[in-house]
Amino acid sequence: MIGGDATGMSAASQARRLKDPDELEIVAFERGHFTSYSACGIPYWVGGDVPERDQLIARTPEEHRARGIDLRLRTEVTEIDVAERRVRARDVDSGAESWTSYDKLVIATGARPIRPDMPGADAPGVHGVQTLDDGQALIDTLARTRGRRAVVVGAGYIGVEMAEALINRGYEVTVVNRGREPMSTLDPDMGRLVHEAMEGLGITMVNDAQVTKILTGADGRARAVATDDAEYPADVVVLGIGVRPETTLAARAGLPLGAHGGLLTDLSMRVRGHAGIWSGGDCVEVLDLVSGQERHIALGTHANKHGQIIGTNAGGGYATFPGVVGTAVSKVCDLEIARTGLREKDARRAGLQFTSVTIESTSRAGYYPGTNPMTVKMLAERRTGRLLGVQIVGREGAGKRVDIAAVALTARMTVEQMTALDLGYAPPFSPVWDPVLVAARKAARAVEQHP
Amino acid sequence: MIGGDATGMSAASQARRLKDPDELEIVAFERGHFTSYSACGIPYWVGGDVPERDQLIARTPEEHRARGIDLRLRTEVTEIDVAERRVRARDVDSGAESWTSYDKLVIATGARPIRPDMPGADAPGVHGVQTLDDGQALIDTLARTRGRRAVVVGAGYIGVEMAEALINRGYEVTVVNRGREPMSTLDPDMGRLVHEAMEGLGITMVNDAQVTKILTGADGRARAVATDDAEYPADVVVLGIGVRPETTLAARAGLPLGAHGGLLTDLSMRVRGHAGIWSGGDCVEVLDLVSGQERHIALGTHANKHGQIIGTNAGGGYATFPGVVGTAVSKVCDLEIARTGLREKDARRAGLQFTSVTIESTSRAGYYPGTNPMTVKMLAERRTGRLLGVQIVGREGAGKRVDIAAVALTARMTVEQMTALDLGYAPPFSPVWDPVLVAARKAARAVEQHP
Repeated sequence: MIGGDATGMSAASQARRLKDPDELEIVAFERGHFTSYSACGIPYWVGGDVPERDQLIARTPEEHRARGIDLRLRTEVTEIDVAERRVRARDVDSGAESWTSYDKLVIATGARPIRPDMPGADAPGVHGVQTLDDGQALIDTLARTRGRRAVVVGAGYIGVEMAEALINRGYEVTVVNRGREPMSTLDPDMGRLVHEAMEGLGITMVNDAQVTKILTGADGRARAVATDDAEYPADVVVLGIGVRPETTLAARAGLPLGAHGGLLTDLSMRVRGHAGIWSGGDCVEVLDLVSGQERHIALGTHANKHGQIIGTNAGGGYATFPGVVGTAVSKVCDLEIARTGLREKDARRAGLQFTSVTIESTSRAGYYPGTNPMTVKMLAERRTGRLLGVQIVGREGAGKRVDIAAVALTARMTVEQMTALDLGYAPPFSPVWDPVLVAARKAARAVEQHP
Repeated sequence: MIGGDATGMSAASQARRLKDPDELEIVAFERGHFTSYSACGIPYWVGGDVPERDQLIARTPEEHRARGIDLRLRTEVTEIDVAERRVRARDVDSGAESWTSYDKLVIATGARPIRPDMPGADAPGVHGVQTLDDGQALIDTLARTRGRRAVVVGAGYIGVEMAEALINRGYEVTVVNRGREPMSTLDPDMGRLVHEAMEGLGITMVNDAQVTKILTGADGRARAVATDDAEYPADVVVLGIGVRPETTLAARAGLPLGAHGGLLTDLSMRVRGHAGIWSGGDCVEVLDLVSGQERHIALGTHANKHGQIIGTNAGGGYATFPGVVGTAVSKVCDLEIARTGLREKDARRAGLQFTSVTIESTSRAGYYPGTNPMTVKMLAERRTGRLLGVQIVGREGAGKRVDIAAVALTARMTVEQMTALDLGYAPPFSPVWDPVLVAARKAARAVEQHP
């Protein structure tokens, strides 16, 4: 196993369930200090919702070792020799290198954050939030920082979650975003709702802005984020620009990479054309079941599933991963943001013609206390009426409704079929027509009127 | 239209959207005072969560009339003459009767509450909660009642919701239940969790108890509920024993009824064998897509869908209702209870062999604040692995997760297919494996081990 986080250690654990140590020796190389942790939880640790770092660790190195996994921490794999079936690993602290041969190899090298190549990006006070070490460094900086102004660069999931974390710690937060609206995983009309809600939460949102440099003070520390037009004073800067597959090793070994830079696998998560080598998690591309094309999605839930599949196959069993529909859910304070399937531009890029509708509804019966408004956007293919995507923005009760659409996409349902879905109804849980059904009805009419 | 609630008036509204008054005359007979109200909301009105009765009314008689619907309130249809295509209606107040002929007929007579045939069942202080008039009468009684002891007869949805309502009004509540555990729409092992939680809420739960009579005092008012073994003092008694299809008129007219006493329709909601007569809502039986057999389910969400389908067809369009999977969700205070598909005994009755698993998980990531435990039970068919049913008991975030299973049942997914579902994940919304996926994994393993 190259990499000791979600995919690598899930695979190791699952393979160990199927094969005893005398049947299968498992060696896992991890260059960091930790295994099996929830990177997705880092914003909540930084924000104080999760008090202790160790709460984010699902399984410690000791637990893995107790199950007969030879885990080598602080050990970085520096080369994969596919022809000779061996990997070269380096002890990060001593620098010592050695080769280890394998019968089966799992590449779970994850993703690396996009670090903009600009002046000041490495200055003290500028932080990424990808690893537990990153999170600890940011928390240490926040503890030392006297000022209360934070700038977050990027307005995707990590950006908005970090905006919430910093608000929760009492910072004045400015989010600087390259796109037209925050959350570019939504269509801009839905991103606009996020924009407005974030401003309502007291976050300053700067869109259409390309960060050109981080300005530093006399002490060398970050003091402001600069764009072409303006400067935004910052006592701390958080980079949340997204990630790319970490496939440097794989590329050097001649393994097949896709258009997004991720490893290409088959349905059993085997690297294409390479029996005995599997890969999964943030370093692979996944099949999007809606568009039929590969995408790169860095998300813990896929990484864990991939680990299960790989561990089963490497352990002599059989399992496949059919692909994804692109579901994601997030929140900024009490604003819930969810999406699944294709955005308008994804659908166009995939050659699909579609109709798109947007409706307003509520999380509970209109008369029930605590009902919250929500906006649901739905895309359906012309002629066939097949569901293509759903985006939801609302308050409590909005986000997880996207699961209804995620299952419907997986089943390739039409919006007409969705209008008859037997969803849970009672006044504290839903209006008599669930918001997703209201959207499906409108989409079905739109398909009928403009086939 | 015979009946002016969800099905009748949805059908009327939808037909009116498709046909102008000069093309289609619509007459709706309703024997009560109200139209288009949420009977499901009555417990929350009684409990005080919904302050005003009129909040439960989706559309008033005046609004319907303004749209060109000839609505005749307090007018009861007493006979359907299928051969002559006419109905006889009686003015409830004056007793005057007259015949009205029709080209198209919609029977939306709903359900009637089961009123036990026992001494005292009609005494003052004994209340059903099916109609707005029932709800008002109960509220009036509660306002006049000095004692604070309430007995609820029945522990299904209405029973547990009324228990919550009476707790919220400060009553000491005893629920007397014929079954082994409350919520007989769940398997008893899941009902047991509801039982324990209700006791934790301070509700006294009496199971395996058949009510034999309501004891009355010298003033003729209810003073206790008696079973074979015991007496439960009561200042107010609420009957929540369930409902039966109200098909007296249809039966007399010779229309086809099913094993549960509901009208039988085809997929276009036409009464079988009768062109020009449709029926829907609480007075029909619906096709259960999981068992392939008819069931009776009184639920507003089906009634509204049926109304849409009927209105479309009666208005000259085309729509069908494919059937249900049996989804229901409810709550008692902060306890959420949900089910979809078949219980163990339903599956057995349908000739299906199955494996059943139960798992414990949480609503959010284990480390995220506000995470709540939930129990998920899942049934899968032997050999095929097809999902047969899901039951969920938990706190906030549990109930609507049943929708995932509802869509999967509709799509006839296997539990193995479900393990790969791309559900929304972020720490505030779900563990990295959603509880439904955890159950699906366990069920898939069980099917594999005992095919």
